[in-house]
Amino acid sequence: MIDVQNTPDTREIPLQKVGVKNLHYPVTVLDKTNGRQHTTATVSLFVNLPHHYKGTHMSRFVEIFHRRHDDLGMKQFLAMLEEIRQSLDAEKAFGCMEFPFYMEKVAPVSGEKSIMNYTCTYEGEVSESEKQFFIKVAVPVTTVCPCSKAISEYGAHNQRGVVTVKLQNTSLFWIEDIIELIEASASNGLYSILKRPDEKFVTEHAFDNPRFVEDVVREVCIALKNFDKCEKPFTWFSVECENFESIHNHNAYAMTVK
Amino acid sequence: MIDVQNTPDTREIPLQKVGVKNLHYPVTVLDKTNGRQHTTATVSLFVNLPHHYKGTHMSRFVEIFHRRHDDLGMKQFLAMLEEIRQSLDAEKAFGCMEFPFYMEKVAPVSGEKSIMNYTCTYEGEVSESEKQFFIKVAVPVTTVCPCSKAISEYGAHNQRGVVTVKLQNTSLFWIEDIIELIEASASNGLYSILKRPDEKFVTEHAFDNPRFVEDVVREVCIALKNFDKCEKPFTWFSVECENFESIHNHNAYAMTVK
Amino acid sequence: MIDVQNTPDTREIPLQKVGVKNLHYPVTVLDKTNGRQHTTATVSLFVNLPHHYKGTHMSRFVEIFHRRHDDLGMKQFLAMLEEIRQSLDAEKAFGCMEFPFYMEKVAPVSGEKSIMNYTCTYEGEVSESEKQFFIKVAVPVTTVCPCSKAISEYGAHNQRGVVTVKLQNTSLFWIEDIIELIEASASNGLYSILKRPDEKFVTEHAFDNPRFVEDVVREVCIALKNFDKCEKPFTWFSVECENFESIHNHNAYAMTVK
Amino acid sequence: MIDVQNTPDTREIPLQKVGVKNLHYPVTVLDKTNGRQHTTATVSLFVNLPHHYKGTHMSRFVEIFHRRHDDLGMKQFLAMLEEIRQSLDAEKAFGCMEFPFYMEKVAPVSGEKSIMNYTCTYEGEVSESEKQFFIKVAVPVTTVCPCSKAISEYGAHNQRGVVTVKLQNTSLFWIEDIIELIEASASNGLYSILKRPDEKFVTEHAFDNPRFVEDVVREVCIALKNFDKCEKPFTWFSVECENFESIHNHNAYAMTVK
Repeated sequence: MIDVQNTPDTREIPLQKVGVKNLHYPVTVLDKTNGRQHTTATVSLFVNLPHHYKGTHMSRFVEIFHRRHDDLGMKQFLAMLEEIRQSLDAEKAFGCMEFPFYMEKVAPVSGEKSIMNYTCTYEGEVSESEKQFFIKVAVPVTTVCPCSKAISEYGAHNQRGVVTVKLQNTSLFWIEDIIELIEASASNGLYSILKRPDEKFVTEHAFDNPRFVEDVVREVCIALKNFDKCEKPFTWFSVECENFESIHNHNAYAMTVK
Repeated sequence: MIDVQNTPDTREIPLQKVGVKNLHYPVTVLDKTNGRQHTTATVSLFVNLPHHYKGTHMSRFVEIFHRRHDDLGMKQFLAMLEEIRQSLDAEKAFGCMEFPFYMEKVAPVSGEKSIMNYTCTYEGEVSESEKQFFIKVAVPVTTVCPCSKAISEYGAHNQRGVVTVKLQNTSLFWIEDIIELIEASASNGLYSILKRPDEKFVTEHAFDNPRFVEDVVREVCIALKNFDKCEKPFTWFSVECENFESIHNHNAYAMTVK
Repeated sequence: MIDVQNTPDTREIPLQKVGVKNLHYPVTVLDKTNGRQHTTATVSLFVNLPHHYKGTHMSRFVEIFHRRHDDLGMKQFLAMLEEIRQSLDAEKAFGCMEFPFYMEKVAPVSGEKSIMNYTCTYEGEVSESEKQFFIKVAVPVTTVCPCSKAISEYGAHNQRGVVTVKLQNTSLFWIEDIIELIEASASNGLYSILKRPDEKFVTEHAFDNPRFVEDVVREVCIALKNFDKCEKPFTWFSVECENFESIHNHNAYAMTVK
Repeated sequence: MIDVQNTPDTREIPLQKVGVKNLHYPVTVLDKTNGRQHTTATVSLFVNLPHHYKGTHMSRFVEIFHRRHDDLGMKQFLAMLEEIRQSLDAEKAFGCMEFPFYMEKVAPVSGEKSIMNYTCTYEGEVSESEKQFFIKVAVPVTTVCPCSKAISEYGAHNQRGVVTVKLQNTSLFWIEDIIELIEASASNGLYSILKRPDEKFVTEHAFDNPRFVEDVVREVCIALKNFDKCEKPFTWFSVECENFESIHNHNAYAMTVK
């Protein structure tokens, strides 16, 4: 049976990335409390394609991912990319895997337990000489507007916002520790269950800690620089905060890159 | 050239709806202030299909919509559906058209003008004997939580919410009047531009008017029953409110149907 | 601490539904092959609210769901709704839970195994006297256009489509059996891994089985009426097919209700 | 009234971008045939924020955009960003504006006219010394799989795909010319209306021109290098193609950067 993809190509245009996008798969990742966590992922997998090949073999990406989907900690994710790279005889392989990450939260006064979801994304790139790994974590938070609080006789507009951190790391750390760091940098973290004493607590706590998007980004930056639950400091990171303003139908946004 | 769609079908299964979905088109609708408003729509158009036909002729839906896209007030929308019904020799035709509707707002203290967007949807159904028209308007608002305000020593959690009203009407009315009615029923309406004196005003005004999702729905219901800017009262309506809670990552919701 | 929600309300407007929407949780559902399947869900939970209460207690929905999220077969889902109904002293409780459902598929020639995802939704409503349960399954398929095949000298446009079935059932059945029934009614089912001999097979098989959206809906209808892997026949169902046409930027659609 | 944003900040963290996201506004852009085109946009506007300022003044972004929303050709978009930069006394201003762009198409045999939509995005960055402008155009196309055609006795799987080109340009060109270039590089362009003789034509034409995602990207690259409807060649571009595979539930993807 003819292998069209293997046909020589004379157009002399190398491609940075070819592969599969939007593959939906169940996956297992690491969990600080329980060891392993079952979740569901949306996955993209690519290699580079030299100019002289007509096409890549798309089924191999999924075959390799299929064999490894049940054990995808950060290290295993990079090993999976390396296997793709070698199988397709490419210089580079790239991958991206987005998944909801679940974490049990304890309500601040009642102690009621519930589960919160945070959107995480692994991003990796491997070549023969180099491996790069990034992790992105999006954490929803409460933000109280410092300007609204300062100028109003009572009250202050507040809203749900989302803080997104992207980290480059060379040693292992726990996603849970990053989530806690981010929630502590906003006016408040969010919970799936709050009883009335909890609601009183979070309302007053947030009002006592007003934060612009600019403030949240800066506080997260400082906390990431001081983060000591990782063997080595992060070599690179970016921090974003986007507020779903309660007084506007558009969002406020701030971003910085280390 | 053979017309496969016209082939007889022996499976004896009539279809309630066949047609096109997710057609994107520029459209022109009516505007209380400026007469006409240019906007962009996502459109679905269907007819019923008797059991003895294999298929419908999909291109005719778009041909008729194309001829009429530049003049789509409520009446013209129903006339367009009737033309589809007759052209396809069907008992019934259905249509749905969602579009952002823009309205100029004036900031409450500074008087600054800006434009707000509201998602509107026309829904129509026509047969030889009957015409039904519904309009849905989704209005983003501010809601301050009455419980949080009552139990906390200071502050109150608040957030962006969205109120969605669906109305059946037999006489014309202005979308703008429905938007104003809804904004007046929430803790506050939203604005694209607010200067600091406006921000002080809306913060305090919202704090003075706390509303649960349940309250917003009930206030909108009362206002719709008393609405006098339409020749005839609405024969049917539903009201929903969904709050993007600033203390949770899930939403609070209430709904009622007249 | 004051309970504002319990305050009497004098507006005399009962609400059909109040509760929580867009709650994200890990869940465990039943699986024909493995007994249980871990997946992730988006959940809405409501009760009705009589006119004389100001509000409902939103945290209780999540408390009850939290206790039961790890065992949510169809029966357990209804039991969970009944517990919510009683806990909130309501006449009715409603719930909706959408989740990706994963199923292993075997490629038709090479026999390679891979996992496909299907979007499923449970919908339930319980009152003291009645329980209703619906399940919705969305199955992506291939459809080859019969008209294009008939009028062209070679080739035929084809595309990905999605068939959505909603079933009311009173006895248990397997989601996997519904998926197989739907895939057999289209030009072809989809796979996450196809090697070249598989690709040849599915291309020719689909070309041999051209289907309009109208055909797919009718074939699924017939198969559901003849479905014998369920103790009792379905009391109600609807079938939709939407094709992401490869020659248009809009979709073709057909729907019927039993 | 206190200006909290103007308060000095001692955390010594400059922010790359602060501003507004997800602002929805009606806009007017240029149109090759009609001079001007009314459409609707989603807009983000940012400036950098030096480390010594606590916050930016979010309302000014919207004030400036509001004054200019009705005349937003490429040049005017950059002028708008420059006005924001100066008004907020910033070193840099950034903006991003996504909108559906509509273009009349003529069916290849019947000559029937209809309107197609293409998603366009302006991206600009201005500083005192430099102005950069990028435009992104996403064009839905048909792609027939060369492998499936070569290995199958009849038929070939095909599907809707989307080609996204991002161009940096220093002289004006027409979006319409880029769309035509892209459609000519795929197996076929799409149409909102095709009568049966047109459907025969596009089916056969696509079958005669099979293209992998890799092929489409390379053909578009070659065409962009040879593009002569612009005063100066593009200084930079990227080309992506993503196929919504009709035999998989995931997508095939290829990308290159000049």
